[in-house]
Amino acid sequence: MHAGATNAEIDGVIAEIERLGYRSHPIHGVERTIIGCIGDERGKARLTALESMPGVEACVPILKPFKLASREVRKENSVIDVGLGVRVGDTRLAVMAGPCSVESETQIMQSARAVKAAGANILRGGAYKPRTSPYSFQGMEVDGLKLLAKARAETGLPVVTEVLDPHDAELVAEHADILQVGARNVQNFALLRRLGKLRKPVLLKRGMMTTLQEFLMAAEYILSEGNPRVILCERGIRTFETATRNTLDLNAIPVLKEWTHLPVIVDPSHGTGYWQYVTPMAYAGIAAGADGLMIEVHPDPAHALSDGGQSLKPARFESLMQGLKKFAEAAGRAL
Amino acid sequence: MHAGATNAEIDGVIAEIERLGYRSHPIHGVERTIIGCIGDERGKARLTALESMPGVEACVPILKPFKLASREVRKENSVIDVGLGVRVGDTRLAVMAGPCSVESETQIMQSARAVKAAGANILRGGAYKPRTSPYSFQGMEVDGLKLLAKARAETGLPVVTEVLDPHDAELVAEHADILQVGARNVQNFALLRRLGKLRKPVLLKRGMMTTLQEFLMAAEYILSEGNPRVILCERGIRTFETATRNTLDLNAIPVLKEWTHLPVIVDPSHGTGYWQYVTPMAYAGIAAGADGLMIEVHPDPAHALSDGGQSLKPARFESLMQGLKKFAEAAGRAL
Amino acid sequence: MHAGATNAEIDGVIAEIERLGYRSHPIHGVERTIIGCIGDERGKARLTALESMPGVEACVPILKPFKLASREVRKENSVIDVGLGVRVGDTRLAVMAGPCSVESETQIMQSARAVKAAGANILRGGAYKPRTSPYSFQGMEVDGLKLLAKARAETGLPVVTEVLDPHDAELVAEHADILQVGARNVQNFALLRRLGKLRKPVLLKRGMMTTLQEFLMAAEYILSEGNPRVILCERGIRTFETATRNTLDLNAIPVLKEWTHLPVIVDPSHGTGYWQYVTPMAYAGIAAGADGLMIEVHPDPAHALSDGGQSLKPARFESLMQGLKKFAEAAGRAL
Amino acid sequence: MHAGATNAEIDGVIAEIERLGYRSHPIHGVERTIIGCIGDERGKARLTALESMPGVEACVPILKPFKLASREVRKENSVIDVGLGVRVGDTRLAVMAGPCSVESETQIMQSARAVKAAGANILRGGAYKPRTSPYSFQGMEVDGLKLLAKARAETGLPVVTEVLDPHDAELVAEHADILQVGARNVQNFALLRRLGKLRKPVLLKRGMMTTLQEFLMAAEYILSEGNPRVILCERGIRTFETATRNTLDLNAIPVLKEWTHLPVIVDPSHGTGYWQYVTPMAYAGIAAGADGLMIEVHPDPAHALSDGGQSLKPARFESLMQGLKKFAEAAGRAL
Repeated sequence: MHAGATNAEIDGVIAEIERLGYRSHPIHGVERTIIGCIGDERGKARLTALESMPGVEACVPILKPFKLASREVRKENSVIDVGLGVRVGDTRLAVMAGPCSVESETQIMQSARAVKAAGANILRGGAYKPRTSPYSFQGMEVDGLKLLAKARAETGLPVVTEVLDPHDAELVAEHADILQVGARNVQNFALLRRLGKLRKPVLLKRGMMTTLQEFLMAAEYILSEGNPRVILCERGIRTFETATRNTLDLNAIPVLKEWTHLPVIVDPSHGTGYWQYVTPMAYAGIAAGADGLMIEVHPDPAHALSDGGQSLKPARFESLMQGLKKFAEAAGRAL
Repeated sequence: MHAGATNAEIDGVIAEIERLGYRSHPIHGVERTIIGCIGDERGKARLTALESMPGVEACVPILKPFKLASREVRKENSVIDVGLGVRVGDTRLAVMAGPCSVESETQIMQSARAVKAAGANILRGGAYKPRTSPYSFQGMEVDGLKLLAKARAETGLPVVTEVLDPHDAELVAEHADILQVGARNVQNFALLRRLGKLRKPVLLKRGMMTTLQEFLMAAEYILSEGNPRVILCERGIRTFETATRNTLDLNAIPVLKEWTHLPVIVDPSHGTGYWQYVTPMAYAGIAAGADGLMIEVHPDPAHALSDGGQSLKPARFESLMQGLKKFAEAAGRAL
Repeated sequence: MHAGATNAEIDGVIAEIERLGYRSHPIHGVERTIIGCIGDERGKARLTALESMPGVEACVPILKPFKLASREVRKENSVIDVGLGVRVGDTRLAVMAGPCSVESETQIMQSARAVKAAGANILRGGAYKPRTSPYSFQGMEVDGLKLLAKARAETGLPVVTEVLDPHDAELVAEHADILQVGARNVQNFALLRRLGKLRKPVLLKRGMMTTLQEFLMAAEYILSEGNPRVILCERGIRTFETATRNTLDLNAIPVLKEWTHLPVIVDPSHGTGYWQYVTPMAYAGIAAGADGLMIEVHPDPAHALSDGGQSLKPARFESLMQGLKKFAEAAGRAL
Repeated sequence: MHAGATNAEIDGVIAEIERLGYRSHPIHGVERTIIGCIGDERGKARLTALESMPGVEACVPILKPFKLASREVRKENSVIDVGLGVRVGDTRLAVMAGPCSVESETQIMQSARAVKAAGANILRGGAYKPRTSPYSFQGMEVDGLKLLAKARAETGLPVVTEVLDPHDAELVAEHADILQVGARNVQNFALLRRLGKLRKPVLLKRGMMTTLQEFLMAAEYILSEGNPRVILCERGIRTFETATRNTLDLNAIPVLKEWTHLPVIVDPSHGTGYWQYVTPMAYAGIAAGADGLMIEVHPDPAHALSDGGQSLKPARFESLMQGLKKFAEAAGRAL
């Protein structure tokens, strides 16, 4: 309450708290009164409306609003079986690698073979591309999905690819093993609900503007529809710094590991936007405790139709994987 | 190019620029060489892949990537006729007011009458609500749309309401005059394309972390599908400051007025998040050159199901409108 | 406390709170216990150390930490007499105008006459310049101070100029009427203390990444040393947006007006970084409730030694002042 | 130039560029003309004033403005000898550890012995404290310096401590081996110049709002005064995320390693603000290529006078150092 709040104002707020189904606990200080509200967290957002009552200075939420994603609900780490013998969140690191976009059969098959040879265990590649400009390449769509399925058949690598429209979700789920929600769609609630109703693992990317609490609330949308198989991915936030395309926020890893049981991977390719920073930030991500990596690899980055500047050539990816072994071991993980 | 780039590297980059269909203009400085690229802006994003070629230091785009939204394409201001005699972008200010969510027939009818009486010319109200938490009130959906249509019939005010899922767009378009794209969906490209194919005015809200250039690229998605009736809305960006819920970025108004011919309105309710800051920031928006306002008004904010803390009571909204007259006049506009 | 905190842990925290001289108020919820701490705000920062005690989840401060700057201490607005008949915070708006840097006698005398003729009532001009690069022009220093004093003598306008080093404070105070603390020095506590000991008005600019609470804590440094004459200046914060050099945060005006009795002015020149946005944002600042403006005016911006791109020519400044009259009137102020 | 710029406008800009001592290189595109400017980078800031000339759309700097800090000037890494046999930037990692503030003889002596026993090679401790609030503990000042010198004498560890006021620099230099510039003073140019004139190593902390380019320009202030012994320290930037106190920006490490020859260390204590995130982020920093760490260690964090919540107990610091060995080895470094 404000410093000068009257008793009538305080009583009015208490009455309203009780009307909303919460218990009130007033604490009378020398300068002002604070009123604690105890009760069910779900629906607690309505309490913020108290701020428009006379005498109220501010409503300060104390508890986290997510439930199913919380460590308090489940103490042990979730391990997500994505099929073809690969588990994300286990001792063995998940390494998802491949091109930004599927561009042709040659390109995706070359990429798939190269990343497998270097030690990746999941193939990435975009068939539907969310591009800032309507005039940029928008992806091969269904043809891209079919090429991904072909690459999966040949290499035995499970496939992760992005869904843009809720109504494409089932089609994508037929061809892919993990459905990716991109950073721009992290609060596309229609899409999250739809993926919550499917029974496929979901790779949920943090948005450029998403707090970690909002990120877990987005995961909660999927979990609360009945799909517990969510993998979180830190991929860089937007800050004032322009030396990197985004600011890969590795702090997210220990925070998420404390707050949630869901596995967390790191994407240093989008996170930094420049190929020369990918390797050190990949190592840093594993050292910080991540369960895996997502890395853009392209057989010919200079001719890539999207994100060439941040893609590794196969030889550089191989050398990243070589160097990764010691860091994985230091972190108590295996490749 | 890097300071020590070889002639072979420079020639390689020039050859690649020409291969991509651009003309190259090398400038040889004392320390390094800069290569200008001239050509069609559409598809120019592919040039950034040059950053992975040997010897290249950075690719710096010089021109803006939007076309149809640009002032260079259309010098005079666009005026959008939204029906029922209301035009956005004209001398008369557009004032969209009403509750955050449609909650009941009584609530929306009371709100509609109150905002009309105070001088608003468009009714706002959410039927589909994008909420951070899956456990919060998600809107009355189709029933909400019907109540909005009823309020419109009684008051004669055109209605603006949000669309969340591309597949609801036609249904919403049957009941509303302006389709709103919320801040979280500003880069939901599946939704933007769908609205580009309809022939209804679109109110496009800037995202919390959307640069003005990206904002106009989002508008470009709608325009390039054939729908020229886009109204832009500044509603606050996310910054480090926590005194306000968002940071209403009024700088966006003169910048957008310089870059684009599309009308621009301001939402100080979401922009600040506290009712007591709404009136001064509404006045400031009009003084900065905005074409209108979007204001949350609720007959009983303390009991609102969403965003009560930032909603004005009808009497306060009336007083806002009273004070607005002089500012509108100073800005050469009318109410 | 954490959800699983033991009674021993709770008792330990309570004992520590009391040891630090605060009263404790435990609230026992279904899932966890919250402990309120009541007592003197000064020194309260030490309570945050409780976060390292076993069982503690987080310390959440509820009250604002500033005292002397607070509206609760002083309800009416402070009006600062800056000499030569000018008062900041009164009905008449304060308009500080002039070049970024003092460059020559001709330049500063021309500027002073021009801004006075257009209606400014305070002359600005930098003699000590904080420049990002050591290779940029660093100001005329003492010679600049003397030229400012000369312009003041001729025009009768009080002068505001920046102090960079605490040990220059007295020298600057001999020549100027208002001592400016620049954005980069808002938390240069050695400088703030020194200015608190002088008896000259201080213009304190908000830093690019200073929250409004930190801003008032910086003012508190000056006030708590015994100097009550502090004028606050919003001049743009740093965000992700690059269309403007900074993001002028006009939301700061209603927030500061609510929290503090100190006068608040707005600098749209630094706030936007482009001359063409200065006029609309100046009008918006006054509409939002500011007590005045700080505007860069240069007789020949294209040849300015610093900040030419954001400076107005005298004719444009005159036209800004013409248009300002109606906005001032709408805001209940005078020019 | 703008799309519609006239030939006269283009000629005017070219003439002005030449007048300022630069060579001009116009490139004529289909839609507009771009004019390259070639010449000395020092003073280049003046070219931005061209933005106020008729027909000019924008000035885009292409080259980095720092010289002495640049890798282009010095290819090999700088190694800074800080005395007592310790070198920063060499194969052996620099580990600076100790309390936030010196609080008493017992506390600093206990801390010094503990961090030395655990393997730290530099002692940190603040005697002058820059605190947000004037009512918080401000440090023991000269008495603190003497206690640091005593701890140094006993343990043989070189000491790093902060300078706030340029006029204290020499006094601090008598007692300490490395002079620290805190985050709030990174653009306190009076202080930077003073430290550039001394011949002591400087630990320069990145500000919360400082881009990496500005950070190196701040280093350039020290270097250009003749002191080449600068150690850079990443300590977290300010973003929208509130789960951590700051956002430790590890991307800064590979970027700085590319741009500059100066050593770079990481401070995960201030960078995250919570003791439980310090260890994983310390490991991540080394994995990203940092030359060392700065860690807050306090014998009794719950009773610390400042920053208790982010300080490690000696036993936890020892376990951090144990785990660090493998990561250091993986990074090709030694402890």
